[in-house]
Amino acid sequence: MKAEIISVGTELLLGTTINSDAADVALLLSEYGINVYWQTVVGDNPGRVIEAVKRAKTRAELIITTGGLGPTCDDLTKNAIAEAFGLSLVLDKGEEEWLRSLWRERHYTSLEITPNNLQQVMLPEGSTALRNDWGTAPGCVFSAEGVMVIMLPGPPREIRPMLEHRVRPILASLSDGVIASHTIHFFGIGESEMEYKLRDYMNSLTNPTLAPYAKNAECLVRVTAGAPDAEEAERMMAPVIERVRGLFGDLAYGMDTPSLAEFTTKLMLEKGVTLATAESCTGGELAKAVTDIPGASAALMGGVVVYTNEAKTRLLGVPAELIEEKGAVSHEVAVELARRVRELMGSDFGVGITGLAGPDGDGVHEVGTVFISLADRERVWVREKHLSQRGREQVRLYACQHAFDMLRRRLAGLEVEEIDQP
Amino acid sequence: MKAEIISVGTELLLGTTINSDAADVALLLSEYGINVYWQTVVGDNPGRVIEAVKRAKTRAELIITTGGLGPTCDDLTKNAIAEAFGLSLVLDKGEEEWLRSLWRERHYTSLEITPNNLQQVMLPEGSTALRNDWGTAPGCVFSAEGVMVIMLPGPPREIRPMLEHRVRPILASLSDGVIASHTIHFFGIGESEMEYKLRDYMNSLTNPTLAPYAKNAECLVRVTAGAPDAEEAERMMAPVIERVRGLFGDLAYGMDTPSLAEFTTKLMLEKGVTLATAESCTGGELAKAVTDIPGASAALMGGVVVYTNEAKTRLLGVPAELIEEKGAVSHEVAVELARRVRELMGSDFGVGITGLAGPDGDGVHEVGTVFISLADRERVWVREKHLSQRGREQVRLYACQHAFDMLRRRLAGLEVEEIDQP
Repeated sequence: MKAEIISVGTELLLGTTINSDAADVALLLSEYGINVYWQTVVGDNPGRVIEAVKRAKTRAELIITTGGLGPTCDDLTKNAIAEAFGLSLVLDKGEEEWLRSLWRERHYTSLEITPNNLQQVMLPEGSTALRNDWGTAPGCVFSAEGVMVIMLPGPPREIRPMLEHRVRPILASLSDGVIASHTIHFFGIGESEMEYKLRDYMNSLTNPTLAPYAKNAECLVRVTAGAPDAEEAERMMAPVIERVRGLFGDLAYGMDTPSLAEFTTKLMLEKGVTLATAESCTGGELAKAVTDIPGASAALMGGVVVYTNEAKTRLLGVPAELIEEKGAVSHEVAVELARRVRELMGSDFGVGITGLAGPDGDGVHEVGTVFISLADRERVWVREKHLSQRGREQVRLYACQHAFDMLRRRLAGLEVEEIDQP
Repeated sequence: MKAEIISVGTELLLGTTINSDAADVALLLSEYGINVYWQTVVGDNPGRVIEAVKRAKTRAELIITTGGLGPTCDDLTKNAIAEAFGLSLVLDKGEEEWLRSLWRERHYTSLEITPNNLQQVMLPEGSTALRNDWGTAPGCVFSAEGVMVIMLPGPPREIRPMLEHRVRPILASLSDGVIASHTIHFFGIGESEMEYKLRDYMNSLTNPTLAPYAKNAECLVRVTAGAPDAEEAERMMAPVIERVRGLFGDLAYGMDTPSLAEFTTKLMLEKGVTLATAESCTGGELAKAVTDIPGASAALMGGVVVYTNEAKTRLLGVPAELIEEKGAVSHEVAVELARRVRELMGSDFGVGITGLAGPDGDGVHEVGTVFISLADRERVWVREKHLSQRGREQVRLYACQHAFDMLRRRLAGLEVEEIDQP
């Protein structure tokens, strides 16, 4: 089955909003083995929406639109789609009732529903409404001219649950056979080197297939198999996964996890160990990454952001003379950060990060120099990294990734200290 | 002038990568008044890339492609574009020399450049290379059949500087007249309410125009004017900006700033005041947001992440009995967090955040209940917010936004405490 995604919104063409919706839709479609060959973005312009839909009808059996379902005058997707299929719009009584009661419940400035809000419950004739419990504009689904059309709202916090709870059941009912995939996650190797090492093996495969890519300072390999059922797909993928993991040894840290941060935090929670963080250049990013995961309070005893030298001394008692002598960005200060924050919080592990994220330097170190330290009750490990070509945001992200990598290696009983790349 | 953006990459169709490149390109184009009516995404498939380019040629004078310029076998954009225009690929000697020297400088596992890397410097005949100092694959620009084509690499950390340093000068040389715009930023009002209040005025305008939108827990209004020169555009926008700001009073916090976090941090730096943070449910997100801004060390004295009750007591001395009696999520504990962290760090201001980000509750408060506190040397202000419908990530983001809003209001001499919305 072939699908096409059409995103509607002038804000996407102006670049003021990034099109994360298309990626969310695509991820779900690929789970059901539905191929997407085209994604199109058009503005809030009826003519071009109609043109895009008419072209999509000729090359896809499923069209999913995102955006343009709301109450403002720019929200014209339903009108345009109806016109492209020669359908009229009709008021959906069930959705109208729901919207009116929602309006009464919420604390709006006016209690009378405004007419522009009712435009949201006008759907193409023959549609089934997809209730939007996370916003106000319902989605809908209809079939016409041999094509199924699903319309979804644009805001990410609405479309994500709509995909999960409204669209997934529809896709499940359409698909025969399954496409299953696993993602193997790596830290400590670049995409180009990984692709180079994998290329021959990758090209020798047809089903399952392999696809390496880089994302958020990690590398990933996606293994995908098509099979009559899930069990068979798993059986086909198992030896491929084993071979890929074997090629890269302990650079592969996990499977099917959103990130090294989440993997490591969950590993801490499983093992019942606790962490305390002392961050200089990352300024809270490491603690934030841990607490992004619900339930992280059992793993993160606490943290300090010691961006200034004074804070390092005040909060952790790092001797001012040591900072003076060795510099705030030094192996010695990194050791003190991890050791002292662990002692202060009484946690199993302490992590320290000190470095120069840039863009300005300190006259001593190259921008991008970072020391990452991990302390347990007995010893302290330190990595020194030079991430100068990556820019401030990436330097901070890589520093956090190294901290998680050191911790996950310590928890798995692997070598913690230096790794070559990147 | 009309432009079209074509993004190439199977990872975009699979949804494993979000298409931020298209937004970055679009933002730059809109600065030069170049209209984008279509964005298309295709996979690493020569036939569909050629089809997309051939269609784009019929409706745009400028085509910008992103992705597919690298050394792997999926990187086929240059071949496809050359074919769509009937051009051959030729080795660019200058780029080849540069790539070979780059290869020698970097610490790759092998010192001999691999043949797949040289594929990066094969460009369509008649092209001018756009040197990529942030990666290895050069971009290029050529004109044929009355259309200008610009090809750019896919990785965001490469395309962003390429747009600024390589593409901007080209666009500047193309444009006659200017399109200028300003963005007015709001916190404390929803998009729907803003649009409702603005609608009549907005619809009465043709040049300048107004466009409201929501982004990252803020609302924005973009004012855009087309004029012969920048001065005239400014003159046309001034009364519109004044009127919009007048409609919403002090809910408008600033203009042309990336975010409330950056605006407030820069305001602190300008005024030479310092901050200390004590974060429970936001877990370091507030401190990270401040330290995202280079130079923030002069404003952030330090911070603590006191996710657990024990950390609140150990790091800040919040009495365990108070937490026991009032609960960690309470007005009283919020007061202590802001007050004590300010005293501990000796800063001008202290901010405290305590709340239930969810998804699990504490059996007492509704998920989404957050107390945000601001202390100066004399007093403490507290906001109590109920953000239950927004989900964990949004609850944390809104809590940080409220902290910044309280701080910017205090620094501007405005009322700090409660605001109605959102």
